[in-house]
Amino acid sequence: MGDSATLEQSAGNIDEQVSGVVEQAKELQDAASSHISRTSVEEQALRKSALSLDSNIHRLRSLIDSLHRNKILDPKLADKLDEDLQRARCILVDGDASSFLPGNAQGGFLRMFLGPINVHATRKDVQLKVKEEYNSYRDRTALLFLLFPSTLLILRSWIWDGCLPTFPVQLYQAWLLFLYTGLALRENILRVNGSDIRPWWIYHHYCAMIMALVSLTWEIKGQPNCAQKQRGVQLFLQWAMMQGVAMLLQNRYQRQRLYTRIALGKAKRMDVVWGETAGVDGQLWLLCPILFILQGFEAYVGLLLLKTAFVGVVSEWQVVFCGVLLVLMAVGNFANTVQTLMVKSRFKAKMKRSKSKQELN
Amino acid sequence: MGDSATLEQSAGNIDEQVSGVVEQAKELQDAASSHISRTSVEEQALRKSALSLDSNIHRLRSLIDSLHRNKILDPKLADKLDEDLQRARCILVDGDASSFLPGNAQGGFLRMFLGPINVHATRKDVQLKVKEEYNSYRDRTALLFLLFPSTLLILRSWIWDGCLPTFPVQLYQAWLLFLYTGLALRENILRVNGSDIRPWWIYHHYCAMIMALVSLTWEIKGQPNCAQKQRGVQLFLQWAMMQGVAMLLQNRYQRQRLYTRIALGKAKRMDVVWGETAGVDGQLWLLCPILFILQGFEAYVGLLLLKTAFVGVVSEWQVVFCGVLLVLMAVGNFANTVQTLMVKSRFKAKMKRSKSKQELN
Repeated sequence: MGDSATLEQSAGNIDEQVSGVVEQAKELQDAASSHISRTSVEEQALRKSALSLDSNIHRLRSLIDSLHRNKILDPKLADKLDEDLQRARCILVDGDASSFLPGNAQGGFLRMFLGPINVHATRKDVQLKVKEEYNSYRDRTALLFLLFPSTLLILRSWIWDGCLPTFPVQLYQAWLLFLYTGLALRENILRVNGSDIRPWWIYHHYCAMIMALVSLTWEIKGQPNCAQKQRGVQLFLQWAMMQGVAMLLQNRYQRQRLYTRIALGKAKRMDVVWGETAGVDGQLWLLCPILFILQGFEAYVGLLLLKTAFVGVVSEWQVVFCGVLLVLMAVGNFANTVQTLMVKSRFKAKMKRSKSKQELN
Repeated sequence: MGDSATLEQSAGNIDEQVSGVVEQAKELQDAASSHISRTSVEEQALRKSALSLDSNIHRLRSLIDSLHRNKILDPKLADKLDEDLQRARCILVDGDASSFLPGNAQGGFLRMFLGPINVHATRKDVQLKVKEEYNSYRDRTALLFLLFPSTLLILRSWIWDGCLPTFPVQLYQAWLLFLYTGLALRENILRVNGSDIRPWWIYHHYCAMIMALVSLTWEIKGQPNCAQKQRGVQLFLQWAMMQGVAMLLQNRYQRQRLYTRIALGKAKRMDVVWGETAGVDGQLWLLCPILFILQGFEAYVGLLLLKTAFVGVVSEWQVVFCGVLLVLMAVGNFANTVQTLMVKSRFKAKMKRSKSKQELN
């Protein structure tokens, strides 16, 4: 009876307790709703000032440039003012206020996969975590990119007698599809969070997704005459291996460069490295030839696929499609690498000019 | 010279302007950082009270239940108190405070594709938009689910002479892969935002993703003996068509039921309908047989695939794999449907009991 005695005791004020809870719920609702509306008003105001500050910095920078060009401004003063503006921009873009700068709009790709959920992180530390994770994802990926196809190629000549079995190759293609989908989603998320990643590198991953999907439907022929029929697959794997080496080099250089740029206050930390040409200066002369060779090889594989399709060895539509796609990707990669190099050299020339001027003065 | 005169004029106070901008940047940084820290303190407090209110409601509800069972509480009073608690819970769960209730943790699937970005929407209206969009996505999907395979089957007998060509079937399979990936991502996002969707239906979509991927690597045989070799594909398409009909019915019923439940204050608006058994009561007796027939057919297609693999007509690993997966999915669907029906009938029995009691009183 002890139990029911306790129960009876608690029955005494149960209606009070319940009405207390209802009261609490109402109060909490009021508090939450006023918190939300107050926060959104404050955020609006912060967003407005961040935007106007940003446009002020842009305006003053171009004003200083034209004063400098017309020799109205003392070069030393111009340099000092430029530095000040740079500092203001760093505070705006790397500090807490950056959460209130508008990011890029969320594109159709994210909407297609995720629906209308917002992936803009308001807190800077979350944004940085996303960026950091993207970099380490790329690192892990590059390693697998090197290991997976090279294992397949080694096993091919050691164990498989020059003839790749279907399953491991298809597993590799499925992995590529998953990988490129993940990269494209992450890069779109980074863009929403204010990264300056070049659109081409995202399109490039869309193309790679489509190619991985198409290659899955592509029958891998067996004996007899295996080596001839699998020539395309083999070339593709070799190209993927080289891609792995290049990605590893790139990742190292780009990260180094990004940290240097952050230290110099020249990059927002959300900048994803713009593609294939970044690198600390000295190392660029190592990376660039590798990238161009890779792009040449990509186009070569594409053309070879087209050739095999048109001389009639393998005449499935997948061969033609992958061939055309590879050539297009190679051309796009080349054009974007050259563009980035040109921007880089123009920037360097400008730096040199201002340096020698300072020395003259 | 007019231009340069204007320039000279603006050069006059350029250093003042620049230092003004630097000052503004510092002020904005301070304002932003204090806004962020203040907001996060307030949110912490709101989160704490929401959590304690939630546990209070749970405690009181079980207390009332046991008082009621031990006949210590007047049944009328118990009903009234129960209703009050229900109201408090509605305020908490459907109002602005709900943003401060913890959602489900973000699972590995989302992390794998998106990285560590947070997809928990803090604002209720965004959460509802996500839910609404998920429902309309399902509607559009169901329509395509009906049209796509039925078009393939109709063309097969009208134009293609009983032999499905490879490309349209593979296009369909690629669409399935994309569709199930999107559904799985969206459902995971809904879970993070507090929806009660049954985990099985998400696992089910993972299985379907894997199956679509595997079916892409599965060679679609042509003439001769096309009808026999393509038996599996044909059955699969028929099953998909029935799936489309069932999805359309389900969507209609589930939405209706959801709105009824919201109106009765019995569901959070984030509840995704739990799978295949929901439906407004009268319509349930139409939906249930269809669902069971569909599950039976799913298992039948699976077993048929296994049979063709073991009698040696088509002996690729994909056939065995898809067969096993279909049987597993059918069994899982069946178990989950039965479970949901049991929960439903138990709930109904309870409602009836309390109703008849009220009438007795």
